[in-house]
Amino acid sequence: MTSRTDLADPRPRRGRPGYDRDQVLAAAVQLFNEQGYDATSVADVASRLGLTKSALYHHFASKEELLRLALDDALDALEHALDRAVADSGTTSDHLRGVVEGAVEVLIARQPSVTLLLRVRGNTTVEQDALRRRRAFDQRVTALVREAQHEGLLRTDIDAAVATRLVFGMVNSLVEWYRPDGSVDPGELARDVLTVALDGLQSPG
Amino acid sequence: MTSRTDLADPRPRRGRPGYDRDQVLAAAVQLFNEQGYDATSVADVASRLGLTKSALYHHFASKEELLRLALDDALDALEHALDRAVADSGTTSDHLRGVVEGAVEVLIARQPSVTLLLRVRGNTTVEQDALRRRRAFDQRVTALVREAQHEGLLRTDIDAAVATRLVFGMVNSLVEWYRPDGSVDPGELARDVLTVALDGLQSPG
Repeated sequence: MTSRTDLADPRPRRGRPGYDRDQVLAAAVQLFNEQGYDATSVADVASRLGLTKSALYHHFASKEELLRLALDDALDALEHALDRAVADSGTTSDHLRGVVEGAVEVLIARQPSVTLLLRVRGNTTVEQDALRRRRAFDQRVTALVREAQHEGLLRTDIDAAVATRLVFGMVNSLVEWYRPDGSVDPGELARDVLTVALDGLQSPG
Repeated sequence: MTSRTDLADPRPRRGRPGYDRDQVLAAAVQLFNEQGYDATSVADVASRLGLTKSALYHHFASKEELLRLALDDALDALEHALDRAVADSGTTSDHLRGVVEGAVEVLIARQPSVTLLLRVRGNTTVEQDALRRRRAFDQRVTALVREAQHEGLLRTDIDAAVATRLVFGMVNSLVEWYRPDGSVDPGELARDVLTVALDGLQSPG
């Protein structure tokens, strides 16, 4: 990575640091997660990047647009993982494994935007739209769990909606404690979640 | 419930509604959960109750005191549940069951203050203290899981700290979706969490 103040840099100097949209969005999401969306102003985001507010408005029309893009990023990826899992040939059991593995991958790859998604409370239209998409996602997974119960693959003494919420409780908890630089391998984590969800922690012996 | 403006009410009228400390605290916690602690002012809490700011300061010295009391309420109850579970006679397995059942009970009985606790990010001393207590709680449960692994009760192919976090991911998710007026029975919920955690969702057949 070359420094922006590198004297050998032949590019003309600009009046403001040359952040692209993705970098501005990433800084906004980080601030929203640190101090809450409501408590964060566009001026806070600009100041974090050393930009003026008007330079930031050059990229984004409003704070709400930043929120919508971040939530869409998380939701698009989760829905895509679900679509891909159920499009695979294989049994309902394979599909469910695929959904859980895919969701763990998305949470790890997009931890900041998924963290933001999971904290959304529905105070604005953007947040309400995101909550609707989360509910639709949950309902599709619940339908899959119910199908697996009917096929005799999953136990039927736990309600399908409760089972889905408990498994996603494990998956979603990753955004709180998974550290990319930590000792836990992402692939191993997906296997661990599936092991607990399907076989439980009790010693198989 | 009689109305405060009931003409037949023989009690002398007061200059402000007679809320006690618990009611003021409950209103504050509700607001913190709705719009975030940082985004909530003492004036917001007072206005929610129809009190003046000075009437509220009659009960509490600061917004931080409200936060500390709410977080202590959740943490005291969780630590008490853990103490009680391990003080019981019985095997390590019984103790672990007791911890999970106790935590589910606390989450259901104190949903607002536990919700607040789980959203704490450590922006203030009060929040940092709460995070320290949460970590100490997690470490005690992890030690219990490790003991159960050594005793051959729990599988050893999942790290004890990861197993603890996944199980508490399920437990903690309850604050997001459990509704006291809903169709899910609290006792059944504790059994469901234990069933998934210990035996998994896979059909036992």
